[in-house]
Amino acid sequence: MSAPTTWVPGGAGSGYDVDHLPYGVFGLRAEGPSSRRRIGVRIGDHVLDLAAAARHEPFAHRVSGETLNPFMAAGRSTWDEVRRWLQAALVDHDAAAQHVSEHLHRIEDVALHLPFEVADYVDFYASVDHASNVGRLFRPDAEPLLPNWRHLPVGYHGRAGTVVVSGTDVVRPVGQRKGPDDAEPAFGPSARLDIEAEVGFVVGTPSRLGDTVPTSAFADHVFGVVLLNDWSARDIQAWEYVPLGPFLGKSFATSVAAWVTPLAALEPVRVPLPGQDPPPLPYLQVQEPAGYDLALEVEVDGEVVTRPPYRTTYWGPAQMLAHLTGNGASLRTGDLFASGTVSGPERDQVGSFLELSWGGREPWTVGGEERTFLRDGDEVVIRATAGTLTLGEVRGRILPPVPPRPRFEGFGSES
Amino acid sequence: MSAPTTWVPGGAGSGYDVDHLPYGVFGLRAEGPSSRRRIGVRIGDHVLDLAAAARHEPFAHRVSGETLNPFMAAGRSTWDEVRRWLQAALVDHDAAAQHVSEHLHRIEDVALHLPFEVADYVDFYASVDHASNVGRLFRPDAEPLLPNWRHLPVGYHGRAGTVVVSGTDVVRPVGQRKGPDDAEPAFGPSARLDIEAEVGFVVGTPSRLGDTVPTSAFADHVFGVVLLNDWSARDIQAWEYVPLGPFLGKSFATSVAAWVTPLAALEPVRVPLPGQDPPPLPYLQVQEPAGYDLALEVEVDGEVVTRPPYRTTYWGPAQMLAHLTGNGASLRTGDLFASGTVSGPERDQVGSFLELSWGGREPWTVGGEERTFLRDGDEVVIRATAGTLTLGEVRGRILPPVPPRPRFEGFGSES
Repeated sequence: MSAPTTWVPGGAGSGYDVDHLPYGVFGLRAEGPSSRRRIGVRIGDHVLDLAAAARHEPFAHRVSGETLNPFMAAGRSTWDEVRRWLQAALVDHDAAAQHVSEHLHRIEDVALHLPFEVADYVDFYASVDHASNVGRLFRPDAEPLLPNWRHLPVGYHGRAGTVVVSGTDVVRPVGQRKGPDDAEPAFGPSARLDIEAEVGFVVGTPSRLGDTVPTSAFADHVFGVVLLNDWSARDIQAWEYVPLGPFLGKSFATSVAAWVTPLAALEPVRVPLPGQDPPPLPYLQVQEPAGYDLALEVEVDGEVVTRPPYRTTYWGPAQMLAHLTGNGASLRTGDLFASGTVSGPERDQVGSFLELSWGGREPWTVGGEERTFLRDGDEVVIRATAGTLTLGEVRGRILPPVPPRPRFEGFGSES
Repeated sequence: MSAPTTWVPGGAGSGYDVDHLPYGVFGLRAEGPSSRRRIGVRIGDHVLDLAAAARHEPFAHRVSGETLNPFMAAGRSTWDEVRRWLQAALVDHDAAAQHVSEHLHRIEDVALHLPFEVADYVDFYASVDHASNVGRLFRPDAEPLLPNWRHLPVGYHGRAGTVVVSGTDVVRPVGQRKGPDDAEPAFGPSARLDIEAEVGFVVGTPSRLGDTVPTSAFADHVFGVVLLNDWSARDIQAWEYVPLGPFLGKSFATSVAAWVTPLAALEPVRVPLPGQDPPPLPYLQVQEPAGYDLALEVEVDGEVVTRPPYRTTYWGPAQMLAHLTGNGASLRTGDLFASGTVSGPERDQVGSFLELSWGGREPWTVGGEERTFLRDGDEVVIRATAGTLTLGEVRGRILPPVPPRPRFEGFGSES
């Protein structure tokens, strides 16, 4: 490239070059857990303290919060303004001496927090391969897809309060489950603990109750993208989910990456959706290219076990957003909506262990050992690239279940 | 009663006497829509500005917010302390002169706001009569109750961002719906707009991720109770809800009362649950009395059309809370969980028009006119009494659907 390169050591040519610049929230490890939270921008293996570096800029008050929410709420023109400033400051070699370089921290010196406060969390079911696989597994004698599936992006609300940042341990949940051969349900640890490798979209610009957001307004509302792992306890889910949908099988934890990739950074990897038949109703029609070419990988204990391709996903994110608001439901800054499990057409492209093990019947291996679902101690990392960009990973390790505490310990106040 | 009576005119013997004292958030009408929000306590037809009246009390900083959340987060000992102070101040005739009476406002002079910021919203399905009615309507040839129903309180997450305060108009939602005789789905206004008369429980004390809240800790976590109307578009819901549950058929609006009745005020109306067969698993067992005797009424355009009795509800609120956290899901201050439609065994005791009209086939009448579902302009009010207490009503009027706006109008920032 003849474009000017960044002066930050290790930034140029990395997955976190100036064409990426994802946002996160960090504190300084040296200051301990109570270190003040501030917005950071990742460049190579460094993190720029944005508010400190940009303290004399007109947008400074937008980026001085302890979460991304005020910045996300400021809207697309502010997002563009900050990104332009960053891209200039990080390639301008004079800037290195001009109060920017002094606000760079090495990534190993920072502690990353949940980057935004989640308002509502909605999970979709947008991959035709995933929905078909689940249909075949759960209803082997019927059509894999239910009648509504090709007409609308099926979705439901998840628990916003248990969205956690990458790196947070996940305690194996307990709950009611009843196998097909069990006479009665029993309460205990999930034996079918699974992942869902997903792509999440973070809303910045809110909308008013009663308004709809057309597909053409997607980029005015969506601030950025995060990888997401919607941990799932399949045995709890299978017993509880009729008729109102998944609940405790999902609500114990949903992990998101610590880095939010700005939507603008994904312009180069826009690709057409794979094709929809029948054509969607007008409110779901999009101007192509409306998909994104993200290549996911799922790693268990250091070994890649599956490679889900997001580009094959049937319903695009602008369609999910238009559907979500089609009834007039308002958006809030911090709303998070996700693709649902990303699965491609091949067995080594699926985004869940339910599919990888074909319902638990066909073990896969990691480190020479067989697995169907997750064991205590397993660590799962979901990674993705988007062209030259490396998306922030989402990582989590399974801890053994906690025995129920018989007595209540009070809490003084909310954090 | 020989107990001392309140000095507030009209308070004694009303549904808002010193045995009730619900909390809300208000501004002054004379100051317009931007009037500062403050916590109010209802006594008779007056509202006490709590922070102003209690400004010299040790708990003053807990009740000086613009929502109930900081007060709710302070925990049960603070709730008890404030309630004791109020009950003393409002019966002490000297207090009338001592800087309390000057902070009373007439209820017609205040504008009521959403009393708390909703964290996560969970809706249950706890009435056996409602679940059986819906089962009979949707699956006439099968067992009305699904196999899991008597083993766990079925529930799911709703949209927290569209919870609105009583009095907010509800725009008839549009969406996809497909009748059994339609070849294809179409997009348009819901033709089966319904209510769900419910009782909502508001969480004050949070819990940590990975912890469970036993049924015995219910009163340590739950701050109070609100009436709730979970507006439902049955045609949108019927088409979308498989397999992940209701979504847009519910997410356009959920109305809650402006007044939160403290849990302590409902001690006199505690009643045993109606009985559970089979006995629930240990984590769902309760110490009786674990139910509440609330008598609901649903009024349409000024006429009572049904009287749902909450005391017949199968699953009690402490069971719903223990189930909700049974997998380690954390609670946040502001979490709202609701009973689901409250229906008694008789036709004139059902909490939805789906049931009142038996699937739209048997019209009911209001003002001599036939109804199945709601018409534009209809106003619905849900009221309830709890012994001598009158719960805050939840009211909403149906506005005609808004035609979709083809172009996006940006917003500068979040409110």
